[in-house]
Amino acid sequence: MSAKIVTCIAPVNIAVIKYWGKRDEDLILPLNDSLSLTLSLEHMCSTTTIMASPNFIENKLWLNGKEESTENKRFQKCLEAIRKEAVKNTGTQDYLSYKIHVCSENNFPTAAGLASSAAGYACLVYTLSKLYGVTGNISKIARQGSGSACRSIYGGFVQWHSGCDPLGEDSLAVQVAPETHWPEMKVLILVVSDNKKKVSSTSGMSTSVVTSELLKYRVTECVPKRLIAIKEAIKNKNFAEFAEITMKDSNQFHAVCLDTYPPCIYMNDISHIIVDFVHKYNRMCGDIKVAYTFDAGPNACLYLLEDQVQDVLSLINVIFPSTIANDEFLKGIPITPKVASKELIDKLSMDPLLQKDVLKYVIYTEGGPGPCEIVEHLLNNDGTPKMLI
Amino acid sequence: MSAKIVTCIAPVNIAVIKYWGKRDEDLILPLNDSLSLTLSLEHMCSTTTIMASPNFIENKLWLNGKEESTENKRFQKCLEAIRKEAVKNTGTQDYLSYKIHVCSENNFPTAAGLASSAAGYACLVYTLSKLYGVTGNISKIARQGSGSACRSIYGGFVQWHSGCDPLGEDSLAVQVAPETHWPEMKVLILVVSDNKKKVSSTSGMSTSVVTSELLKYRVTECVPKRLIAIKEAIKNKNFAEFAEITMKDSNQFHAVCLDTYPPCIYMNDISHIIVDFVHKYNRMCGDIKVAYTFDAGPNACLYLLEDQVQDVLSLINVIFPSTIANDEFLKGIPITPKVASKELIDKLSMDPLLQKDVLKYVIYTEGGPGPCEIVEHLLNNDGTPKMLI
Repeated sequence: MSAKIVTCIAPVNIAVIKYWGKRDEDLILPLNDSLSLTLSLEHMCSTTTIMASPNFIENKLWLNGKEESTENKRFQKCLEAIRKEAVKNTGTQDYLSYKIHVCSENNFPTAAGLASSAAGYACLVYTLSKLYGVTGNISKIARQGSGSACRSIYGGFVQWHSGCDPLGEDSLAVQVAPETHWPEMKVLILVVSDNKKKVSSTSGMSTSVVTSELLKYRVTECVPKRLIAIKEAIKNKNFAEFAEITMKDSNQFHAVCLDTYPPCIYMNDISHIIVDFVHKYNRMCGDIKVAYTFDAGPNACLYLLEDQVQDVLSLINVIFPSTIANDEFLKGIPITPKVASKELIDKLSMDPLLQKDVLKYVIYTEGGPGPCEIVEHLLNNDGTPKMLI
Repeated sequence: MSAKIVTCIAPVNIAVIKYWGKRDEDLILPLNDSLSLTLSLEHMCSTTTIMASPNFIENKLWLNGKEESTENKRFQKCLEAIRKEAVKNTGTQDYLSYKIHVCSENNFPTAAGLASSAAGYACLVYTLSKLYGVTGNISKIARQGSGSACRSIYGGFVQWHSGCDPLGEDSLAVQVAPETHWPEMKVLILVVSDNKKKVSSTSGMSTSVVTSELLKYRVTECVPKRLIAIKEAIKNKNFAEFAEITMKDSNQFHAVCLDTYPPCIYMNDISHIIVDFVHKYNRMCGDIKVAYTFDAGPNACLYLLEDQVQDVLSLINVIFPSTIANDEFLKGIPITPKVASKELIDKLSMDPLLQKDVLKYVIYTEGGPGPCEIVEHLLNNDGTPKMLI
């Protein structure tokens, strides 16, 4: 049998009910359910090519053009789990024993802290599943690469069920609603300049589990109620309700980080100014029209309906003055930003920042489907990467 | 009967178990007990002169050289409550009906957010009590001016009992240990440059009570245990235990602020760098040698034993470079700061900030006694202020 090659792309997802804290470090089993929107593959995605060949003498891995060790425990776990599933699904096949070459890249800066490991591991596991012909819910395998990766296996609104099986067989992602259910829902990602070294989310959440008393309460009392309420809001396309829960849950997640000892701080002064901007915008509207959410970094993800995008972008340009050319500053869905009217600016009642370029760029995007196979490979026929840096 | 004049000074206090959230807005009854150290009157205090005279035609109030309205509800409450107590204590006296002139000032910038209202109301109520000959626990009256003012009525370590009486008769401050119990305990107040408008603590805590789910848990589950533990640590002069509880409680208080909707943010990026500095210093020492605590503002209050002061100050000078002259930068207890050795700097392993003067100044102080009467008045014999601005 000859070599086999498969290439897939997988999306980023942004949680609105946050995952923070594992009940099992090894299997990556979370303390609580979480819920996210999978973002469009158009603007942000991971691409992974995997080739299995009898000619390869060892497994090889390239990430963003740089060779990395395959000894990574999480990588190995995903590979083993998929192969085990493949044997169950289709019986032992020759090429299951072939060495593989894996080449993966993100079309957005890994350093931006934009859920790159979620997209990356979802892409790895999805591509492996295509390579080996594995079907069924592979999210529990992606979960073992990076917890939140399991949510990137599906499109639209996705819930990661924490499950209760000690082996994690029921800790998997399930689609709550496809992205087509709420096409008016849009996303603005505000990438914030930051040079502070952050506590990694893996180490931060494990410290939280040990030291934060508030985390216990969040997990048992707050999150379950919020999940029910936000699923109802999604079902009814009730934006104000969806947005309020999203903001409260982001704040509570960062509150738990602060209650950790030593504290993990991910938001910075600029993040908090964005929070302030959103609350002021909503107050101006007399209704909740925009929601913010922050992951383990200073970047903001704003959820809003399409009819608000122009106004919000125009005010971002006023409050967060930028010297960066517009086509460099605003990425994603093409849009010609309008200029904020004086009336709108006055109504917002917020002073523009004196410091320029606190935002590096903004990505305008929306919900999208799960991973899919594509035909353009990142590896040459001989298994070497087309691009190296 | 002729005019009567009394002048007193009252101290600032810095809580180690924080007060955040009222169960009664009107009577200023807190949701939980809190505990603080009263700071020395030498370096930071409020001074208040009150004169009662049959010749005065109306009550008058000057704060920091500026005339203010006496219609202030909290001012009125304190005045009424003290007069009621005076009648109970000593019977009706002529001068209880005299109008009063009140002149008050702080010897530290009010704007620095350094618990000025606590010292101010403690001073007002203490001075009134001297004027009218009121004895007994007047902290429950000071409490009605500003909650944390009740703790400034006593010296040393002071607990504010939340109490359970709906009228607040048992919501008062009690000394846990005098400052002389632990004379090695010192305090460094790091005043942080900041121009952000903050949510007032009164409005912030009332929003927290309504919106923060985590606050409920903090009040019922976390604070009671911490109070027992920190009182034990104070009794045994166990610094590491005292410090860890202090830091955790400060973090949890700010976590609750962040869990509030909309969130109240008091710490800024510099505050968090100070937190990081303290944890790095403690790691370097292999033991907890310094504790931080933050109130409703970005300034840090560091608790530490005397033997650490030189090292900590020398490293502050390295990490937070200042262009301000030393005698302007370091106030309080006189000390000649040494220069940090290269070895100490290397061991700390923290990069100095590139931005200069993020700290406005540092106050070196310690625990101290409660308010006392002094002989130098802020009012002339005719009841006019000696100093106006």
